Order: sequence, then C-alpha cells, then structure tokens
Amino acid sequence: MDITSLQNPRVKHIVKLRDDKKTRNEDGLMLVEGFDEIQLARAAGHTPQTILFGPELASRSLTDSSIETLTVSRAVFEKISYRENPDGWMAIFPIPNASLDDLKLSANPLVIVAESIEKPGNLGAILRTADAAGVDALIVSDARVDVWNPNVVRASRGAVFSVPTVACANVEALKWLNGGAMRVAAASPSANEMYSDVDLKSPVAVVVGTEDEGLSDFWMANADVKVKIPMMGKVNSLNVSVSTALIVYEAVRQRAH
Amino acid sequence: MDITSLQNPRVKHIVKLRDDKKTRNEDGLMLVEGFDEIQLARAAGHTPQTILFGPELASRSLTDSSIETLTVSRAVFEKISYRENPDGWMAIFPIPNASLDDLKLSANPLVIVAESIEKPGNLGAILRTADAAGVDALIVSDARVDVWNPNVVRASRGAVFSVPTVACANVEALKWLNGGAMRVAAASPSANEMYSDVDLKSPVAVVVGTEDEGLSDFWMANADVKVKIPMMGKVNSLNVSVSTALIVYEAVRQRAH
Repeated sequence: MDITSLQNPRVKHIVKLRDDKKTRNEDGLMLVEGFDEIQLARAAGHTPQTILFGPELASRSLTDSSIETLTVSRAVFEKISYRENPDGWMAIFPIPNASLDDLKLSANPLVIVAESIEKPGNLGAILRTADAAGVDALIVSDARVDVWNPNVVRASRGAVFSVPTVACANVEALKWLNGGAMRVAAASPSANEMYSDVDLKSPVAVVVGTEDEGLSDFWMANADVKVKIPMMGKVNSLNVSVSTALIVYEAVRQRAH
Repeated sequence: MDITSLQNPRVKHIVKLRDDKKTRNEDGLMLVEGFDEIQLARAAGHTPQTILFGPELASRSLTDSSIETLTVSRAVFEKISYRENPDGWMAIFPIPNASLDDLKLSANPLVIVAESIEKPGNLGAILRTADAAGVDALIVSDARVDVWNPNVVRASRGAVFSVPTVACANVEALKWLNGGAMRVAAASPSANEMYSDVDLKSPVAVVVGTEDEGLSDFWMANADVKVKIPMMGKVNSLNVSVSTALIVYEAVRQRAH
C-alpha cells in the first residue's frame, strides 16, 4: 500500500483540491471520482496526472503503466472521497484550460451561455444537455459555482470533459459572441416571443440565468431576441436545466427540419 | 411559547412525519416547510391541520384563526426543520388522497407517467414541468421515492399541490390509461422514432423511466409508440426531468400549432 497515513501530505493536498476552489485554480488541478467518470474523461482525450486506487473498495481494475498510480488504504480513500458509496477510484486531472479564443466552432454554431448558475446539480444537468445536443460550447459567465467543483463533475456524468467549457465574465462572453456573429437569444418569462416561434437555425447563443433572479440587465439589454417558454400552471417555475434544454433542443429540431 | 421541550410528543411526531414514510401513510399527514411553500399549498386549495411558527426565526407573519397555530422555540424549530436556513414556518397538511378514479381530465388529456424515479430532486423538477406545461395529471408508478417526502415537496416548489398526482402500480396505471383511451408514448433511447416526428396532439401519456435502467419491460411491451430524443454527444445521458420536459413540451408545441 503506497499511502496509509491520513497525515500524508498528498492526502492533505487532495482534500484541498476537493474543497477549495483557490487551490484548484492555483494548481490547475481537479479531482474526478469513480471508475466510469475517469474512463469518460480519458475517452474525451484527457490524461490524469495521478490515479488513486483503494484496493479494499475497488472491484474493477485499470492498468496503465504510463500514469502514476498510488494504492491507498480504505481509511485514506474514505477521507479523500466525496461520494456516498465510493467505488475505490479517484484521479487528479489537469483542468482543461480552454479560453474563448481556443474554442473551435462548427459552421453553424449553437452555444449555451449560463449566467451565475448556483447549484452544481443544475450546472451538471446543463452539461449533460450540452453534450447530448451537440452544442459547440458552454460558456459559464459570471460564475457562482466553480465548473471544476467535484459536485459539478459528478452531476455532469463526465460531460464536463466532452463539452468545451469556458468560464468568463459577461462582457467577455458578449464580445466573443459578437465577434463570431452569433445572435443572443435570452430566455426570460417577460419575453414577448415563444421559443418555438423564433428562428434558431442560424448561429445562436441560448442565454439563461438563475431560477430566482433570471438574467441580469446586461443580457436583457444586449439580447438580439428574447424568448419565453409557455407556462400554464400555478407555480410556473421551471428548473433552469429544463428551460435550457427546451430552447436548445428546439434549435436542434429546427435545424433538422 | 407553546412548545419549548424537544421531548414534547408533538415534536417527536413531526420528526416521524418528516423521516418516516410509514408514519406519513398511516396518519395521512405530510410536512411543508417554508412560508412561500405553505402559501402555495393553500392557494391550491389545501388547508393545513396545524402551523408551527418559530418567532425567533420568522420575519413574516401569517394570521388565520381557523387553523391551529403553535409557537415553538428556536431549538424546537431547528429540530423539526429539514432546511439549511429555516425561515421559521412549517405546516402539517393532510396528504391529498387522490386516486386514479378521482382524476378529472380535460377534453384532450396530456398525462405524465414517471416510473420508479429515485431522486427527490428529479421528481420535484418533473412536478414543476407538469405544473408549467398544464398537464392533467402526474402518475408516479411503482414508486421508489415517496411523493410526499419533504425533499420532493421542497424540490417541487409547491407544484406537488397544484398538479393532480397519484402513486400506483404499473398495471393500475396502464388500465386507467387504456380506459381513458390515452395512447402510451414511451421514452427510450432504443426507440426508432424521434419525439418531434410523432403526433402528440391526441390524448397521450408520456411515460419515462429511471436514468440508469430506463423503462421496464412492462411499459416497453405496452407502449403504443416509442420515442427517442436525438443525442449527438459522447456521454449521451440526459437528466430524466429534462427528457420528460422535452417530450411534454413538444406535445404542448404541437397542440398550439
């Protein structure tokens, strides 16, 4: 067993990478827990710096002599884990340092801009939608939750690695969209046009805000078109990942017809 | 202050209602925490049996002399609460005991059947979609999570009260759908038809299963039509509340056009 002490400096570092956004950003490193998630990240072209393996917990094996692999005791694994039922696998990956300039767009781009999303689960669900719908990129603008937070990585089921994702400020995002001649379609319950009545066939960014506050004045003022989703209930509150998916998949539907 | 002791039998009963499905079902009672959620339930026509009010925590007031209202100390409220930041309001409501026979359908019904959903957050998001899309009913079949679980109530933002919701077995649900001449549209990645290519204008039930296992053989065998959502990514895994919303809102879109 390579590591059995909870006081081991590498164990302490891993806990910091799990809990502290500042450490992740300074070191450019993030954690991925779970055999399947690690395989998804690798399949998307990412190579872990280190794999941590708890043989007392793991039922599957993974051999790659090119990657540093450390065996750790059950107690150590349980200390570094962030899951309820750990499967004995964790890896340290370099944070994919995509910037807006690095993004490669298709001929007719479809992009999601998610402003100030707060819940890791919602950002994870948006990433799964972004992956499945084949969008060109997800821009997380004026972020309130770190994209490389372990809870986002888990909720995304690995989509955080398959979707080109950039965190930046609102003004940078808008400048980049304008430079790429993408229209800004802002989702808002106060919009006049239904999302399914608007032409989403040409290059477009679907921009969504928080559930409680909606989009900021910045995006409302800079939108080329504002779209709403019909609501006919009493509560009339859609989950933000649901609203995002409805508009993004309407674009997919229109482009296929 | 009406209750200050953590050993008070009513406090113990409320904790049981919060944590124990069996107690909820036997007593026909459920909890709703939060001022806004309580008001939503009342606006939907439900009357609490008892309101618990922690004056040391609450900033808003609510007066209705027809409802038993008990003031409780901060310590008591924190014991019964299931929220991170309690606002000092909780109420005990009778469980709406809707059965399939009680459901009143519109002339052209649109129904959601959610089979064996496991996560309270997903069931809550489906309820929000059901409310906003104005569906006739949500059937929770072969349930793995209790609809009246406090976490579902919270995640639904009160939609659990605005949407007619029935929990029952798969066979009962199918019999009821057949009796109402509703087509069964089963969501499955293995379907041949795209959800947006299928006619969803006539009476229909959108049937969705778990994220990990999908729909059971029962629904796959009894489906009138199977529909899939196009997936063009690497992970290709949509959140179940997202898949549900895409198909339900496609029915809404078709019916409006």
